[in-house]
Amino acid sequence: MEKEIISIVYGNTEEGSRYLSTLRDREESVQQEVILRVEEILNNIKEQGNRALIEYTNKFDSENVNENNLCVNKEEIEEAYKIVDKEFLEAIKLAAENIRFFHEKQKKNSWMVTKEMGVILGQNIRPLENVGIYVPGGTASYPSSVLMNAIPAKVAGVTNVVMVTPPSKDGSINPNILVAADIAGVDKIYKVGGAQAVGALAFGTETIDKVDKIVGPGNIYVAMAKKSVYGYVDIDMIAGPSEILIIADEEANPEYIAADLMSQAEHDRLASSVLVTNSLKLAEEVKSELTRQVESLSRKDIILDSLQNYGVIIIVDSIKEAIDMSNKIAPEHLELCVKEPFLILGDIKNAGSIFLGDYAPEPLGDYIAGPNHVLPTSGTARFFSPLSVDDFVKKSSFIHYSKEALLGVGKKIVKLAETEGLTAHANSISVRMK
Amino acid sequence: MEKEIISIVYGNTEEGSRYLSTLRDREESVQQEVILRVEEILNNIKEQGNRALIEYTNKFDSENVNENNLCVNKEEIEEAYKIVDKEFLEAIKLAAENIRFFHEKQKKNSWMVTKEMGVILGQNIRPLENVGIYVPGGTASYPSSVLMNAIPAKVAGVTNVVMVTPPSKDGSINPNILVAADIAGVDKIYKVGGAQAVGALAFGTETIDKVDKIVGPGNIYVAMAKKSVYGYVDIDMIAGPSEILIIADEEANPEYIAADLMSQAEHDRLASSVLVTNSLKLAEEVKSELTRQVESLSRKDIILDSLQNYGVIIIVDSIKEAIDMSNKIAPEHLELCVKEPFLILGDIKNAGSIFLGDYAPEPLGDYIAGPNHVLPTSGTARFFSPLSVDDFVKKSSFIHYSKEALLGVGKKIVKLAETEGLTAHANSISVRMK
Repeated sequence: MEKEIISIVYGNTEEGSRYLSTLRDREESVQQEVILRVEEILNNIKEQGNRALIEYTNKFDSENVNENNLCVNKEEIEEAYKIVDKEFLEAIKLAAENIRFFHEKQKKNSWMVTKEMGVILGQNIRPLENVGIYVPGGTASYPSSVLMNAIPAKVAGVTNVVMVTPPSKDGSINPNILVAADIAGVDKIYKVGGAQAVGALAFGTETIDKVDKIVGPGNIYVAMAKKSVYGYVDIDMIAGPSEILIIADEEANPEYIAADLMSQAEHDRLASSVLVTNSLKLAEEVKSELTRQVESLSRKDIILDSLQNYGVIIIVDSIKEAIDMSNKIAPEHLELCVKEPFLILGDIKNAGSIFLGDYAPEPLGDYIAGPNHVLPTSGTARFFSPLSVDDFVKKSSFIHYSKEALLGVGKKIVKLAETEGLTAHANSISVRMK
Repeated sequence: MEKEIISIVYGNTEEGSRYLSTLRDREESVQQEVILRVEEILNNIKEQGNRALIEYTNKFDSENVNENNLCVNKEEIEEAYKIVDKEFLEAIKLAAENIRFFHEKQKKNSWMVTKEMGVILGQNIRPLENVGIYVPGGTASYPSSVLMNAIPAKVAGVTNVVMVTPPSKDGSINPNILVAADIAGVDKIYKVGGAQAVGALAFGTETIDKVDKIVGPGNIYVAMAKKSVYGYVDIDMIAGPSEILIIADEEANPEYIAADLMSQAEHDRLASSVLVTNSLKLAEEVKSELTRQVESLSRKDIILDSLQNYGVIIIVDSIKEAIDMSNKIAPEHLELCVKEPFLILGDIKNAGSIFLGDYAPEPLGDYIAGPNHVLPTSGTARFFSPLSVDDFVKKSSFIHYSKEALLGVGKKIVKLAETEGLTAHANSISVRMK
């Protein structure tokens, strides 16, 4: 018997709750071998700089890259503009404009409060100075991700946004990526990838300046390298397998829902697509639509794998129950395909990005609406947030007291310091109280 | 010859710049043994829950703790209020009030923008639901840290703030800690510590609910356990050795500066205290003051060790040069002991907390001013920030489009999706454009 395209289960059964743990267990285990290899690469970059960087790049990516052409030059970018599809160019420009518009709204001001007797307290908010963006090569090389990572950094005011991306065999970079980087305002692009590129950004080499933070997706080597340098520099979250959850009522459109489930499923065999609905009729219709639509899709094999292993339709008694389930799963993408989606927005506790109504499918958010598509995956929306301008700033607090104000609280500070056994702390106050 | 209490070096010399790398190399290396031990403890907690938790607690902390008295009860808290010093109680209440005042200013609103044709974009900001705070036992058990970790969480609106702290041999908790926790609004207190407490918070046990985020300082076992569960839950930063940097001009007060350098030095032998000044006269005076004042301090041995190994006075040509040096070091605490400190505040790029003028010594910020004392250490102020309300919220973006609005951008989305080879993404738009 052929495996069904997707399972339909009831939410209040063991089968239904078992699904939640399947979702959590999608992580691929990282082999010790990979970790050791990554550490070796990072050490070599730290110690030998460019020499090791070029060696790895020649070995893994292209023999045409050397110290002198490591950095993409102006001519290469001009050439890219000539090559790319004009409709693509227009589309990516609109996307950039919308992303910039949304992220501008996230900017925060430094602030200060003044109190009596010359007490001044505040918080300065400043952009990071140097940020590195990793962009994968090959088929996972997405111009949209270049925009989503670089634009928030530039909006935050980061002075130097540098991009690293592995070159093709001939030493060139995908022109779509070059154009996207240029439109996003990336300051420099280097033709390096893998753990060696992460090492170069974290430690610096003769050519590449060290950065304060590294963001962007990559394969397991890149992810492990980022994890390893964390603390030495900042990183964004390490993304796990991604997911969509759709809450739909009886009036939702099965054709749309099937299409949206598959747009998630095509990403990756570990991607998870979940529909939670109070309508068995809708569930059956979505299932038929999946079977029908998948035939015309180029990534059919991945979609089928993903739907069969990590896709599910869960039948619940009410939309309230669907919301509770969604809050437990904390999906990366959540579509609310119900009659009045805004009325339940306030009930959604955990979700990376929420898509309201029939005409806000996930790909709208992936590409053009403006909010970031770098989102917390695998249930981490319980505590992580979409990539934003906040990720490219740092805060400093500041304190000013007058002598009078300090004298007013001096004895209390001394008491607290002494209670904690920190007499030098107490002394720092006492010398000012004489 | 006896070792000098602190070295005076010139900034523009090799000796001066060598100091910067000494500062960076303060990290203690973590033994493989510790990592393996922590993993074993975490696994046992994950698999056996309370049974393992009680076993470890009986072994490491107290034999008087069992499943029934794991959670501190109301009577214990009432008893603590009776025992504690009344002046301490008043002081900690003022501190809590000031911390609450400052952190209230950090709260952010959810927001939304509406555009033409029913386009609605926004960002919901919501508190985390469950937060765990680690509070060390023994001499590193600081009531002030309880306030600094718990109050921002409660101000953010976290429903359940639970605290874990290792009990004394007799099964009791330091009453100062209990009172601070109660004043800060902590919802539950459990008598467990070490890696096992971190495991209980991350995975949950029969008694302790799993949380979304774990914050608070701890020994190397606690730090490694937090690092290990990161991603499964969120954590705050892993703090390294801490530091103060004081920028002072010729008019600064050497007695105050010496006292402040030592208030940092007493924390820990790896703590670093740095004075950068354009006045050799001040440098010499501070050195004499250090020698004089240290005699009366209870933690003299730690202070001497710390000052001799990681303390330094750096002589520079100008305050501008001092600022450049400070921006490179990115100190956790920065005191600006200059005539007009506000005039250089804008030049400070990297610092955790900035103390302005002669009457804002570091202990004022450690205890009572209001800004958080959990700060980025070891140069990480380049990219990390003080603990704040932002650390206890998560964001979700949301998108609504009307059919008309989607049709307006549909072709561009399809183009972008097809360029990236994601035909199911394109399909999700196409089915809506028929």
